[in-house]
Amino acid sequence: MADGCSRLTSRRFLAIFPQAVSALLPHRVAVIGASGYGGLQTVRLIQVHPQLRVTFLGGHSSVGSRWRKLAPFLETGPDLHVAPPDPDAIAAAADLVVLSLPNGRASALAPVLLERGLRVVDLSADYRFADLEDWRQVYGHQVTVERSDADLCGEAVYGLPEFNRQAIATARLVACPGCFPTTSLLALLPLLQGGLILPEGIVIDAKTGTSGGGREARQHLLLAEAGEAVAPYGVEGHRHTREMEIQAATLGRSGPLRLQFTPHLLPMVRGLLATVYGQLRVPDCPTAQLASHFRDTYRDHPCVDVLPVGVYPSTKWVRQTNRALLSVATNPHTGQVIVMAALDNLLKGQAGQAVQCLNLMLGLPEATGLPLEPFYP
Amino acid sequence: MADGCSRLTSRRFLAIFPQAVSALLPHRVAVIGASGYGGLQTVRLIQVHPQLRVTFLGGHSSVGSRWRKLAPFLETGPDLHVAPPDPDAIAAAADLVVLSLPNGRASALAPVLLERGLRVVDLSADYRFADLEDWRQVYGHQVTVERSDADLCGEAVYGLPEFNRQAIATARLVACPGCFPTTSLLALLPLLQGGLILPEGIVIDAKTGTSGGGREARQHLLLAEAGEAVAPYGVEGHRHTREMEIQAATLGRSGPLRLQFTPHLLPMVRGLLATVYGQLRVPDCPTAQLASHFRDTYRDHPCVDVLPVGVYPSTKWVRQTNRALLSVATNPHTGQVIVMAALDNLLKGQAGQAVQCLNLMLGLPEATGLPLEPFYP
Amino acid sequence: MADGCSRLTSRRFLAIFPQAVSALLPHRVAVIGASGYGGLQTVRLIQVHPQLRVTFLGGHSSVGSRWRKLAPFLETGPDLHVAPPDPDAIAAAADLVVLSLPNGRASALAPVLLERGLRVVDLSADYRFADLEDWRQVYGHQVTVERSDADLCGEAVYGLPEFNRQAIATARLVACPGCFPTTSLLALLPLLQGGLILPEGIVIDAKTGTSGGGREARQHLLLAEAGEAVAPYGVEGHRHTREMEIQAATLGRSGPLRLQFTPHLLPMVRGLLATVYGQLRVPDCPTAQLASHFRDTYRDHPCVDVLPVGVYPSTKWVRQTNRALLSVATNPHTGQVIVMAALDNLLKGQAGQAVQCLNLMLGLPEATGLPLEPFYP
Amino acid sequence: MADGCSRLTSRRFLAIFPQAVSALLPHRVAVIGASGYGGLQTVRLIQVHPQLRVTFLGGHSSVGSRWRKLAPFLETGPDLHVAPPDPDAIAAAADLVVLSLPNGRASALAPVLLERGLRVVDLSADYRFADLEDWRQVYGHQVTVERSDADLCGEAVYGLPEFNRQAIATARLVACPGCFPTTSLLALLPLLQGGLILPEGIVIDAKTGTSGGGREARQHLLLAEAGEAVAPYGVEGHRHTREMEIQAATLGRSGPLRLQFTPHLLPMVRGLLATVYGQLRVPDCPTAQLASHFRDTYRDHPCVDVLPVGVYPSTKWVRQTNRALLSVATNPHTGQVIVMAALDNLLKGQAGQAVQCLNLMLGLPEATGLPLEPFYP
Repeated sequence: MADGCSRLTSRRFLAIFPQAVSALLPHRVAVIGASGYGGLQTVRLIQVHPQLRVTFLGGHSSVGSRWRKLAPFLETGPDLHVAPPDPDAIAAAADLVVLSLPNGRASALAPVLLERGLRVVDLSADYRFADLEDWRQVYGHQVTVERSDADLCGEAVYGLPEFNRQAIATARLVACPGCFPTTSLLALLPLLQGGLILPEGIVIDAKTGTSGGGREARQHLLLAEAGEAVAPYGVEGHRHTREMEIQAATLGRSGPLRLQFTPHLLPMVRGLLATVYGQLRVPDCPTAQLASHFRDTYRDHPCVDVLPVGVYPSTKWVRQTNRALLSVATNPHTGQVIVMAALDNLLKGQAGQAVQCLNLMLGLPEATGLPLEPFYP
Repeated sequence: MADGCSRLTSRRFLAIFPQAVSALLPHRVAVIGASGYGGLQTVRLIQVHPQLRVTFLGGHSSVGSRWRKLAPFLETGPDLHVAPPDPDAIAAAADLVVLSLPNGRASALAPVLLERGLRVVDLSADYRFADLEDWRQVYGHQVTVERSDADLCGEAVYGLPEFNRQAIATARLVACPGCFPTTSLLALLPLLQGGLILPEGIVIDAKTGTSGGGREARQHLLLAEAGEAVAPYGVEGHRHTREMEIQAATLGRSGPLRLQFTPHLLPMVRGLLATVYGQLRVPDCPTAQLASHFRDTYRDHPCVDVLPVGVYPSTKWVRQTNRALLSVATNPHTGQVIVMAALDNLLKGQAGQAVQCLNLMLGLPEATGLPLEPFYP
Repeated sequence: MADGCSRLTSRRFLAIFPQAVSALLPHRVAVIGASGYGGLQTVRLIQVHPQLRVTFLGGHSSVGSRWRKLAPFLETGPDLHVAPPDPDAIAAAADLVVLSLPNGRASALAPVLLERGLRVVDLSADYRFADLEDWRQVYGHQVTVERSDADLCGEAVYGLPEFNRQAIATARLVACPGCFPTTSLLALLPLLQGGLILPEGIVIDAKTGTSGGGREARQHLLLAEAGEAVAPYGVEGHRHTREMEIQAATLGRSGPLRLQFTPHLLPMVRGLLATVYGQLRVPDCPTAQLASHFRDTYRDHPCVDVLPVGVYPSTKWVRQTNRALLSVATNPHTGQVIVMAALDNLLKGQAGQAVQCLNLMLGLPEATGLPLEPFYP
Repeated sequence: MADGCSRLTSRRFLAIFPQAVSALLPHRVAVIGASGYGGLQTVRLIQVHPQLRVTFLGGHSSVGSRWRKLAPFLETGPDLHVAPPDPDAIAAAADLVVLSLPNGRASALAPVLLERGLRVVDLSADYRFADLEDWRQVYGHQVTVERSDADLCGEAVYGLPEFNRQAIATARLVACPGCFPTTSLLALLPLLQGGLILPEGIVIDAKTGTSGGGREARQHLLLAEAGEAVAPYGVEGHRHTREMEIQAATLGRSGPLRLQFTPHLLPMVRGLLATVYGQLRVPDCPTAQLASHFRDTYRDHPCVDVLPVGVYPSTKWVRQTNRALLSVATNPHTGQVIVMAALDNLLKGQAGQAVQCLNLMLGLPEATGLPLEPFYP
């Protein structure tokens, strides 16, 4: 290389060193709960992300295991051992933390991580309610844990980027919604924000693959049980209903509302489809006008797209992507609107959304490093 | 054997001869459309039925094939060749006919069979509307066939045994409802008959396995396409909606009503689940009271059962049976009732229902020869 | 009814009373291990069996549960509570016992049941080896149990009806082979008995649905893990290999032989296919001649059929039946024979075979009460 | 920017201009047969490839359709219309062509494309045999087409990069092997090249998802037919056997050999597993030594990895990647070696391999733009 250039480069390099380094060095991320589906997806996504790097793997049951042993199919992954989630060790190794832990466990760890200056994205339900009392009502009987972090509940930002982008960008603590609320709210919020439907009689009929139930061995998730079968569950008061009602009212800027939410377990690995029904305020509102309203809502959002009228989303179209596909239809006979929303429950419904939030928190383009196109079929 | 007895027997035997023979000899059934799923199931059921026998197999594409070649997995089946559906040949061989033909084809054959004194159970949509004009509106653009059998449309009995038992028993022509209307009506009719829900805002969200789409090769039903995927279809005006609206009003003894019906294609072979939502007239009606009303409705019906409150039906629980399982739930916050109904789309939703109708037409116990318990899983 | 007849009947009735009663009253069967797949299938089969009745349900984890609560999909089942497997209680209630228990548990119960005069069909591996030492070598490291029933191991009859019919008929203790050995032996034994293949180089490549792994929750059997995947397992020394080698040599009347057995886990609920490869002694032996030999072997066996040459068995053709379908092919270029055998792993591979053995033990026709034809698809 | 640097850059830029431009501008690729699975995957891969661009979409049945209409799930794909495969139009638009056409169609197009200076990667079987007579014997009865391109058959390079890298790099015409030969040869060739197994008695037992059968609607590939089922097919002389025998002998540098190849259809969308059995020349050859030989063979090949001894590949571990995973086991009792190879039939078994070949043809790193890690599960 010519002298002039190399000399110059050295001089300039020293001048811009700090920024250059920070631009070149990827951000260091700790993933706690590495061997569940949320952790696996998060590590996989960060691995191909141009500006993130996994620098700490935390866990419980898998402590001591090398990642490559845990996930022989991800051999090029980080060559790390899973360590206990010691806050000091995490703070020494990472700048941001993704918590992929069972409900109740995350809130035992998040406060001490925040104290050490880390920014936290939590995939559990622990910070999805601004009011700790709401959390206690929904999860209190399942989780036996003392919590005194009501203030953090109030501070935490609900990590639905399409409706909370700016708050996420500056948040210390982001509570990512799971697959059911994400899908349902993406379908419902444009209707509520536009004041297009009545608050009564809203129905969310949701269909999910079994990976949404997690990786822990449970009988009803066995292939022999869930294969060749469909069944509803949690019909009377699913734990996600209250969360959706609160967020629908808040983000949808509507008054308080009540939802009928019915999840169904389907014989497939990944994918979530929500079919949302509402009564139109203007019963003969043209479908095209509604579709146009949805398109306007999501125009600047790279991870959500609205299909042409008459084309309905298949979960296969978004499999292993961080994209949600929506479609709007109306029934002129009944004055109802039907919104269908499909996404991958483990990506846009979980780990992909976490990375989308990390991108926003770091000032990166929202979809950086996230797959948006499927391999079909 | 002792004299007294044998003499007696001979005497009595002569006296009751005609009835005895008719009780001993199985009824002769022709199955037209033998190689589709409807035909296959019908033949399979009749084969183990104690009082029916397949004596004629009719078809089109498979004419000339021996049954055992067509269905090597049903080797003990009738050793018949598939013949063209010649009315005289059918009349010579059979007393009853099950038509498992595409829409439009059945109405070309039924009139001439009825003329020859045969009784007909039709699995197509051709006689599901009392008014031929309704049929034309729904199916006219798909099927290019001239029909002049408006009178037969009026005469045909809608073959839903749980709500039409007596009419079926004496009918010459029974039009069996398919899987979607059967499931939906079993869930909806008790609510309508009891005047328990408002006629507005009813939603039927249905989930079906791919065998409901028939055995003809079509791209969207390929395993590679439909596997690992769920998608809605026919959202704006499925052809079954009108049929259900008419039957709901008629059999439900309600005024005219409009339904939102949304079918979804699921990655499984068999099974149909309908989740039906309605607005209760008495919003805080106790679930137990509704369940009790459903139980009363189906008390004398061997093929329908109502699950205990809080237990929700899986299609796996009725797989390869002629049984429908229902469950009722309510949402006190929204005043909605949710009825879930599961059945096997090819049995209670098709061929099993045909045999159930045949049983009624012949004065046999309704569930004769029909499987009611699944092999689980 | 006329006098002559009734008087006669009374007289004759008294004369044949004992036999008549025993023919009319069904045999009483205890099923121990009622909530696993083996138990569920056994109860389901006995329920529709004309001459068997479940009179005792034993279990461990489900003790105290009513059957109808355990299996809401089998509501018409026996209205019994699951009881601890107390030998005296079992002896009081039943004449025959089907043990569907984990390996090691069965041998703790069988001896005391036999002492009480019960006849036992065991679905576990505990009595599949005539020599207890063989069992210890294969299962000893998995099962920590003291056994002193070497004599019972020697007495127990290997419950493969097609090759052990007479011994089963008079046995006190029958050790039913599981799905892998049953399928493999049905394919292999005709070749060995006929001296048609070399003892070297035999390969059994087996493909199984996940229900073969049982109903206990284990991670690798989750739909999310096993769905959309195929993988081999136990490649180096599966525990069934030794059992098959011994039985192949014994029942096949060949010298000692060694087998390569490779099971694969498939994304389906039920079904087992074994593809067996062997080197023909007469390399150009015509396929038709081999098929004819297989047909001869199974001529009098109602639960095994040989398909026409060129037709290969699908597990779907035997789904939920007690039938095995075989097909034979040859490769004239390599001198190999390929035998394909398909069956339902939970019926002919487990509970159906147990009932087939019970039939033989009771002198009933072998296939009494057993389904032999599938509902397709 | 400082003067020194900009001047320097300008000077250097002019000097290296031609190369720089060619490095910056992506290579233009035509995909012919765009709506089948091969075409879809190829377009999807090229879309995210840093140095390739789709500039022509050719087809037959879909001519005139816009890509975005054809594949609504790949909306960011090339906004092109599907055009008839006119050679001049293709030559004007592209530098390289991927043919994803039915057997017999490719050879009608390839010669005229080569004449126009295009380089061709063919996914069909048309150029997989160096001797046109071999092709005629295997495919002649299926495909009624006159061929006079025997010279091109001789020139075409078999596109298995791991064993033909250099020939592919300079080839005008590459004939990519399909999923079965690719998997089988990756498992078999190291054994043959190392002279480790006998040429007799080799068995390839292969298991494939249904997408391998293509996107054309055929009854046996319906979910209702192929779901919940496994069955062998093409047992006596599958059309891939001859191709594998020739390539095994050629690339494996062994003498002529005969293979037993048995494909099985599995109830899953994607994935192919081959279990290959051979008789070791040294019966007690340690597994570790064999594994080491496999590792050496594939050391410099980024798309093939050998698992640790005792870890067996699942097709899920390579789903939607261009990677093959292999594992080696031995049976010391029988002297057999078992090699298991898993890949994604539509990527490393089809379109991914085509892109891998394109990379080699263009002097790019072999795995450029190809996914190697799965999203699990």
